[in-house]
Amino acid sequence: MINDSSFVLRGGIAFSESMHGITTYYRGYLVCVDGICQGAFTELPEKYQGLKLYDYGERLIIPGMTDLHVHAPQYTFRGIGMDLELLEWLSTYTFPEEAKYSDIEYAKKAYSYFSHDLRRCFTTRAVVFATLHNEATIELMNQLEETGVITYVGKVNMDRNGGENLEEKDAATSIQATREWLEQIQGKYVNTKPILTPRFIPTCSDELMKELGKLSAEKELRIQSHLSENHSEIEWVKELVPASTCYANAYEMFDTMGSKELPTIMAHCVHSDEHEMEIIKNHGAYIAHCPTSNMNLTSGVASVRKFLDAGLNVGIGTDVAGGSSMNMLDTMLATLQVSKMYYRLVDQSVKPLTFEEVFYMATAGGGKYFGKVGTFKPGYDFDAVVIDDSKMYSMRDMSIRERIERMCYNDADAIIKDKFVKGKRVYTAVD
Amino acid sequence: MINDSSFVLRGGIAFSESMHGITTYYRGYLVCVDGICQGAFTELPEKYQGLKLYDYGERLIIPGMTDLHVHAPQYTFRGIGMDLELLEWLSTYTFPEEAKYSDIEYAKKAYSYFSHDLRRCFTTRAVVFATLHNEATIELMNQLEETGVITYVGKVNMDRNGGENLEEKDAATSIQATREWLEQIQGKYVNTKPILTPRFIPTCSDELMKELGKLSAEKELRIQSHLSENHSEIEWVKELVPASTCYANAYEMFDTMGSKELPTIMAHCVHSDEHEMEIIKNHGAYIAHCPTSNMNLTSGVASVRKFLDAGLNVGIGTDVAGGSSMNMLDTMLATLQVSKMYYRLVDQSVKPLTFEEVFYMATAGGGKYFGKVGTFKPGYDFDAVVIDDSKMYSMRDMSIRERIERMCYNDADAIIKDKFVKGKRVYTAVD
Repeated sequence: MINDSSFVLRGGIAFSESMHGITTYYRGYLVCVDGICQGAFTELPEKYQGLKLYDYGERLIIPGMTDLHVHAPQYTFRGIGMDLELLEWLSTYTFPEEAKYSDIEYAKKAYSYFSHDLRRCFTTRAVVFATLHNEATIELMNQLEETGVITYVGKVNMDRNGGENLEEKDAATSIQATREWLEQIQGKYVNTKPILTPRFIPTCSDELMKELGKLSAEKELRIQSHLSENHSEIEWVKELVPASTCYANAYEMFDTMGSKELPTIMAHCVHSDEHEMEIIKNHGAYIAHCPTSNMNLTSGVASVRKFLDAGLNVGIGTDVAGGSSMNMLDTMLATLQVSKMYYRLVDQSVKPLTFEEVFYMATAGGGKYFGKVGTFKPGYDFDAVVIDDSKMYSMRDMSIRERIERMCYNDADAIIKDKFVKGKRVYTAVD
Repeated sequence: MINDSSFVLRGGIAFSESMHGITTYYRGYLVCVDGICQGAFTELPEKYQGLKLYDYGERLIIPGMTDLHVHAPQYTFRGIGMDLELLEWLSTYTFPEEAKYSDIEYAKKAYSYFSHDLRRCFTTRAVVFATLHNEATIELMNQLEETGVITYVGKVNMDRNGGENLEEKDAATSIQATREWLEQIQGKYVNTKPILTPRFIPTCSDELMKELGKLSAEKELRIQSHLSENHSEIEWVKELVPASTCYANAYEMFDTMGSKELPTIMAHCVHSDEHEMEIIKNHGAYIAHCPTSNMNLTSGVASVRKFLDAGLNVGIGTDVAGGSSMNMLDTMLATLQVSKMYYRLVDQSVKPLTFEEVFYMATAGGGKYFGKVGTFKPGYDFDAVVIDDSKMYSMRDMSIRERIERMCYNDADAIIKDKFVKGKRVYTAVD
């Protein structure tokens, strides 16, 4: 058993030092001291030789992944109704389902499925939407704290267009509920932080948005929301905030685009143009790229290559249940595939993403949102996943780099054996 | 144990009666007599009440799937080198790998991985490329016969552009080897049939193509090949066969496009225009749509909606190792996703495929190539897969239709329990 937060792991190590390469060690050593990574080594430095060593043999050890955008209450209905587009899918499936979380017993059970599976997947950090219900949101946070995964969790704000069962009465009611929620959870968790969560402009009145902007400044709280996912949604926002120059500008008008110190996460940005990209960049916001969802709901393809070239912060989100799986490997694969499709079908001056870039985004790129997270460079939080890929028979000597790529293109036999967050083992598979 | 070829299965049944709907029975009865499906029923008809009944409870029973295009020798290196496009990927990974199948011991071991996994997946019928080596191809056929899966298998023909280690000396040598192969396997198998397999125009001289056309007519053998997968490939074919009006016409010139009685399978057809579609239709050829591969190798997106509207025969192929998985559910999902991307990014007059259409294509659409295969209508071969999806927790009462869709969008917990081909159980999971 690995109980201490100082130890050495040995195995096939892979991580990103930059977006352009994957550093690998065959049978290398990875050192954790007090939950912090001390680096990876070919030979174990003398000063660490007193630490307990756990030898994983031929297994792979990679950084834990950051899921920048996932809806916990949508988990149990993932993968149905997927012939619909966003707005119809929300009103037909999502909003009626989320309305059920007014029932705490329902929430308790449904969230237990989400928490159970989150603990067992590649994700060590996640930024999570709950619903608008305080009690259910706290239940989710209680459960997530238990998983050991480090998260931001948002009680959702929505005071219009949610239908009669999923709407707060007005901006004041929504803000009041948010303040109560923040009081109720204050000092309660180590790993679970609150994040302000206006669902998106169509469900939040101008007043509510303004008040959330103020609350963010007052409490130094980050914000997450959705941006430029679907054409009909974008048109709608234009009608709702006619003075805005673009969707991101509407958020900007309400002071909810955040700052480098309190960066906002914007999910999707499928149809963001250069003007919108500039706003995102000016605020130091993070883009949660959610390609599985964007395919499933026929939203389109975000041009991630352009985001990277412009120096924007980009991570990856599974966006369950627009996305249908919490497996970040699936989402990495979709990231590669849609970038190839964008290149082939839309613009051949926008080169497809490389595997190195996508691996970076899923680990260090999204991890940056949480601080020094997502790689095995010295000084980073020790978030790691140990993988057994021995069922993926091969006839060749596979390099570590090849095994990592293969695992992403075909995840069926990539079995998680152990998962560490900040040096603490939070999951171990039963052999 | 289910030993007889006459029995009744009970469970959650789903199958296509047409492309436009999925017929379902909750706790319905599915009757097999002498390997032939007698239909699905809400109540078990009296005349079948003497048959042994196997009750699968809440499990799902769907038709076995047809993988219309898969490369057996590429299986063990699936999922690597995927940042390359077709021609570079072939010369860097594929051809050097296939060259190794001159060593029968190598082939024996590598094919055992393919056969092992084929038996355990949703596929009950497959059309398979081997390599150009007779001995290895016969080894593959021996192994496939043991799986119980019904297949067409092709010794590959290629007398140019394969590099020094993967080329037959000339057309005569290639044809001679093909005749020998056909003699060696004559009468040897029940479930494993030969199919003529010119790799594609770039690797087959005009003379070889002509001779294969003749051999097809002489022996009444079907043909499989590749068509219009990648822009560079298409340009190359234009140079190689300058008199052709299009890539399909090049095949037509050599009498290898087949006929309704001996239909040719053409994999990909990503860039087939109306002229090419007409040629495909005139010959009654089958299109093996391989969307995973077409994304992975940045080939593009075939407009399947147009193929269906034009009344072409379309099935789905995993195209391992351009595709990285033999799981037909993955390929169904990719089929849905690329059709949505084609609609969104290329042409909004071409509506995305529905889930019903894709389920049809994976079962009955491709199954038609094998005769009365791919659905549970009376008179069809009894090919069925029993699935346990109980690990996919849900908070709602899921309809059979919803469970089938969910399983396709998220296959991780869809566990195959039993697989039947022509009424014979060929695989059963160890609980």
